[in-house]
Amino acid sequence: MKLHNFNSGPSILPQPVLEEAAKAILNFNDTGLSILEIGHRTPWFQDILNEAVSSVKQLMQLDDSYEVLFLHGGATTQFMQVPMNLLDDGETAAYCDNGIWGSKASKEAALFGNVVVVADTSDKKHSYIQKHFDIPENARYLHITSNNTVEGTQWHQYPDTNIPLIADMSSDIFSRPVDFKKFSLIYAGAQKNMGAAGVNLVVIKKDILGKIKRKIPTIMNYQKHIEAGSLMNTPPVFAVYVSMLTLRWIIAEGGLAEMEKRSTEKADLLYHTLDSLPVFTSPIAKEDRSQMNAVFFLSNPELEAPFLERCKKEGMIGVKGYRTVGGVRVSMYNALPLSSVQIFCNLMKDFALKNS
Amino acid sequence: MKLHNFNSGPSILPQPVLEEAAKAILNFNDTGLSILEIGHRTPWFQDILNEAVSSVKQLMQLDDSYEVLFLHGGATTQFMQVPMNLLDDGETAAYCDNGIWGSKASKEAALFGNVVVVADTSDKKHSYIQKHFDIPENARYLHITSNNTVEGTQWHQYPDTNIPLIADMSSDIFSRPVDFKKFSLIYAGAQKNMGAAGVNLVVIKKDILGKIKRKIPTIMNYQKHIEAGSLMNTPPVFAVYVSMLTLRWIIAEGGLAEMEKRSTEKADLLYHTLDSLPVFTSPIAKEDRSQMNAVFFLSNPELEAPFLERCKKEGMIGVKGYRTVGGVRVSMYNALPLSSVQIFCNLMKDFALKNS
Repeated sequence: MKLHNFNSGPSILPQPVLEEAAKAILNFNDTGLSILEIGHRTPWFQDILNEAVSSVKQLMQLDDSYEVLFLHGGATTQFMQVPMNLLDDGETAAYCDNGIWGSKASKEAALFGNVVVVADTSDKKHSYIQKHFDIPENARYLHITSNNTVEGTQWHQYPDTNIPLIADMSSDIFSRPVDFKKFSLIYAGAQKNMGAAGVNLVVIKKDILGKIKRKIPTIMNYQKHIEAGSLMNTPPVFAVYVSMLTLRWIIAEGGLAEMEKRSTEKADLLYHTLDSLPVFTSPIAKEDRSQMNAVFFLSNPELEAPFLERCKKEGMIGVKGYRTVGGVRVSMYNALPLSSVQIFCNLMKDFALKNS
Repeated sequence: MKLHNFNSGPSILPQPVLEEAAKAILNFNDTGLSILEIGHRTPWFQDILNEAVSSVKQLMQLDDSYEVLFLHGGATTQFMQVPMNLLDDGETAAYCDNGIWGSKASKEAALFGNVVVVADTSDKKHSYIQKHFDIPENARYLHITSNNTVEGTQWHQYPDTNIPLIADMSSDIFSRPVDFKKFSLIYAGAQKNMGAAGVNLVVIKKDILGKIKRKIPTIMNYQKHIEAGSLMNTPPVFAVYVSMLTLRWIIAEGGLAEMEKRSTEKADLLYHTLDSLPVFTSPIAKEDRSQMNAVFFLSNPELEAPFLERCKKEGMIGVKGYRTVGGVRVSMYNALPLSSVQIFCNLMKDFALKNS
């Protein structure tokens, strides 16, 4: 049976990336060595890292005031690392809590300084993005989550601030052209649009560093990673390699404009189908709907289990909602073909027909 | 040309592991999905993690007073994470500085409490292991590096202490049977004897946790990782998978006794050859020589470049000494076949013949 992979992350990757990665496990670039066996200080790996970094800079259209790092860990590591590097004891940071990940990020920051949650959508189960709020004058930065994987909302126009803007872009990175220069720091776990689990992309505007007194553990120190060119310690070589291949694929397919075109096509089809079938319902504010993760429910909760069962039977992978949310979640990352969404929508329609 | 991979890490892995990993990139366990695309909360990944954990417990012969974690990062992450979890402000920890990694570990610990370096072999460029030393009465733990990858020394009999013993075993983990129960905490980056870069094995005796007042960032908190069964956040799925396969291979080959037998055979051959050829010289105390990493020099330094050149020409990968040490380093991890050492020794002999 053909499977359709709607996983929220780790998630579907482009087939050419998988084929190249499998080949490299046995024989990387005809070296006779596995990509898992090469040293991280060889020209071979340096080339991989250089291409990954320059692809990010190209896609984000960044100049040399920014540095691009590939670090161990996932976004959860950055929840700690961002305030550890940027927020001194007693200083204030502003956080938007539009969902579970923003909320977790703010809680970690509170270990390092004063956190002011300037936007909080928990009153309506994070079913919308709070776009207007006041930021304390003394805030060192504003932190947002660009796409809420769990709740299914997304920032479609980023807030204007006169303080450094920091974003967790784990679940919509490289899915659309963005004015990345609005941001002083962007981070993203790779395992959605950008590769395999086990590596973090961190993009930093250098002028925000070096402003705190805290002694930062070496392995968490952005400045030291910049000085070492992401090679302070053994990096997650294979995960960086898969990111490089995925970035190469994005560029070859037409870059972020093309990714956005495809995403919009998939999301429009999914949401149009959803809106046309009363058997399904979505609590998400229409203007804040995520192009990456569509979250919805069965209008009759008793139909949820049969619907998920049918999805499973027909090879639809990863469509069960997040454990704390329930319902259905359909993730439509860059590598998901339109045909998978079409087939899923046909299933929705057929299910609606048989259950109305 | 057949290559012989003497890399110090990332290093050679068993061929069956590479073949299985390459297959899983395209089609994991006949699921039709790539190992890079499966969710980390699926039974598929849970099985991988369970097998990895139980293989570690089996190889180490540990009971349930120990927990086994697979975490993001490498040993350098643990340099911070160990004191962050175990050493409160103002408390004292004892560190052995027998080489570059132990030295780095002690420096990170100093950010969290008082560090007493109880053994320091820098007087002789770390060419031996200082085995006798005094430990302050109030020390919370003693930290050692079981094998010094860079300098080529190894603990052959671990120190007796009445305080918790902690070891960085990155470069000799699972190379020999050890009384692992002597230790309260063991950590190891996977990329030498245990898999691919990007994952850390951390084995913890539970009774050492929960004794400090510091608020630990969630992603660094051992206790929380234990409660979450290494699934607090998205783990480095593929790196854990490769570790599981490598552990499976070690067990299938005969376990740690067999690994030690092979290591001894390889190391004996290498050191015997080294000692028999005056063109080479080693500064390392014989009783402390590492079975994993043989470090030596050319008696006439002018012969170093020609020797390394010849190694390169004949397909010997990774034999250049560490950048701060120079000379030659031959790493002989579990997956390195005896035949590679034989061929290398023949090269040494031939080089000696032509240059004496």
